[in-house]
Amino acid sequence: MNISELGENGLIESIRREFSSQTHERLVTGIGDDTSVTLQDGSAYLLTTTDTLVEGTHFSLSFTTPVDLGRKSLSVSLSDIASMGGVPLFFLVSLAIPGTTPAHFIDGLYQGLRSAALDSASILIGGNTTSSAHGLMITTTLLGEVPKGEVVLRSGARDRDRVFVTGVLGSAAMGLRVLKGEKGDRRGGTGGYDEAIRSFLDPVPRLRAGRLLSERGIASSMIDVSDGLVGDAGHIATESRVGIEIEREKVPVSGAIYEVDKSIMEHALNGGEDYELLFTVPEDKINALCDITEELGTTVTEIGRVTGGTGVRVIGGDGSEVELSSTGYEHFKG
Amino acid sequence: MNISELGENGLIESIRREFSSQTHERLVTGIGDDTSVTLQDGSAYLLTTTDTLVEGTHFSLSFTTPVDLGRKSLSVSLSDIASMGGVPLFFLVSLAIPGTTPAHFIDGLYQGLRSAALDSASILIGGNTTSSAHGLMITTTLLGEVPKGEVVLRSGARDRDRVFVTGVLGSAAMGLRVLKGEKGDRRGGTGGYDEAIRSFLDPVPRLRAGRLLSERGIASSMIDVSDGLVGDAGHIATESRVGIEIEREKVPVSGAIYEVDKSIMEHALNGGEDYELLFTVPEDKINALCDITEELGTTVTEIGRVTGGTGVRVIGGDGSEVELSSTGYEHFKG
Repeated sequence: MNISELGENGLIESIRREFSSQTHERLVTGIGDDTSVTLQDGSAYLLTTTDTLVEGTHFSLSFTTPVDLGRKSLSVSLSDIASMGGVPLFFLVSLAIPGTTPAHFIDGLYQGLRSAALDSASILIGGNTTSSAHGLMITTTLLGEVPKGEVVLRSGARDRDRVFVTGVLGSAAMGLRVLKGEKGDRRGGTGGYDEAIRSFLDPVPRLRAGRLLSERGIASSMIDVSDGLVGDAGHIATESRVGIEIEREKVPVSGAIYEVDKSIMEHALNGGEDYELLFTVPEDKINALCDITEELGTTVTEIGRVTGGTGVRVIGGDGSEVELSSTGYEHFKG
Repeated sequence: MNISELGENGLIESIRREFSSQTHERLVTGIGDDTSVTLQDGSAYLLTTTDTLVEGTHFSLSFTTPVDLGRKSLSVSLSDIASMGGVPLFFLVSLAIPGTTPAHFIDGLYQGLRSAALDSASILIGGNTTSSAHGLMITTTLLGEVPKGEVVLRSGARDRDRVFVTGVLGSAAMGLRVLKGEKGDRRGGTGGYDEAIRSFLDPVPRLRAGRLLSERGIASSMIDVSDGLVGDAGHIATESRVGIEIEREKVPVSGAIYEVDKSIMEHALNGGEDYELLFTVPEDKINALCDITEELGTTVTEIGRVTGGTGVRVIGGDGSEVELSSTGYEHFKG
């Protein structure tokens, strides 16, 4: 069997098994959440996450500017810290660069990193540069922290919790299609597509929302939507040992994008890289959620509920179950 | 100007300048040492380091087994923690893998990581896998810690300190040459070359030595020899604002390798990837060093002294200065 056949989730499962016997008194959560969680001192957990963007897999230099690329490579990690309810602190950047890359490109990349760092009050503390024979690769490792009692894991969802998502979904996947030329000529009145492109190139990590949902004890579980709504809801369902039911008609999409292209509804279920927060809220915390909606810096939409079953079901407008063509974006399957 | 012309050190300098205005009350040392140093709690510093191994640049799958590759990708980061006097704790692995990679190769890789993790009592807490169109790339990020008063930086060397190195140098660079076929047919009586190959494929991080030199307050500055002795001595000289004088005849090499190939002397000065510790010791700590030599788990050799000047000078057997062909291994120059 090769890696394509095994798939990313299969690979992660096999790594998790291989290292399952590891124990450490300071390890709270290792593989299997948005970040690792380790005990830092008496009152705080250290959160750690690493992400790699690969030229040709995650980005094309014909689509993105170096500044956007720099911003996005930090933003995807910031989003992981947000989904744990944490505050970002420090990051490291490991670059593999072809020797022919112009120095001003790298300047732009670091300008983008610096801009995302300023937005999130995190700082660059180290890294590594190395030559690459084929294409650019950026690995960002971000450290953050969260007060001990406030960490929000994937495993905390309980039967009858309600399911919410920040912002709108599917925009990034649509943006990628537009950038790939699959939507034809974009000249004239395609504001929705422009919005989709920006969502793909420069996603906004929901740090403020994640932190508030954690600090106020509102979210029982949380994940960022990077693999697609159904796939990421599946991660919560698996780790929490519950079922999740999503009402398709409630899944929020951008009005401007919907106006130019109705297929956004499909992307909203399965398109990756939205970097919105998907979270569950116990019934008795719904009022607390309503109290802070103004402060979250983004909209919040209820899209379903936690059930006693297993897996993810999507329910259509007529109340029947929607057959899912895919359970989210997987690397190695393309 | 492109990256090849700028070189790795030029690039790091430019990044350092770009981020020089960053401040954070918990940042002790950012870019410019073997690891970053941040305040974790009242009594300990968190150490963080990231390293990338790129197929074609750092390894060839025709030379190395997946197990050795897994071990080495953690060992190079362990060596950075060692050079700060720290204890390794947790690591993350980010893999970019071609989809055609057989699953058993990845199993071997993680077996190697696990073996180096067991040797160093560190544990895998997370990571990331992604597909790569061209070749394998492994980024390891390792977290460690060190008691606040015991961290050993590159910047602590002082005029008249004495300069030491653990183990022997140049073996890894020689091993790489043998693997590349530059030393011809190896059949029959080439034990020295076999030793060199093992040094390249499976370097031993000097964790015990680093920790003891730090804990006992013996080393005033320390670095691991990854770019080559002269290059890394140059990093200490720059950060400490001192000069370093190395006596070529004192630089330790493997007797078995010297016996089959005298050119090991050249590699000992400029060959990279030795992962030995280069450190300076104030005169009044020399006795303390002598007291612990049995416990370090490796030999220690005095090779020179710190001077009031700048830069690195290498002195030959006749007392004259040796002209240096190169100041250490640089990525992007190959």
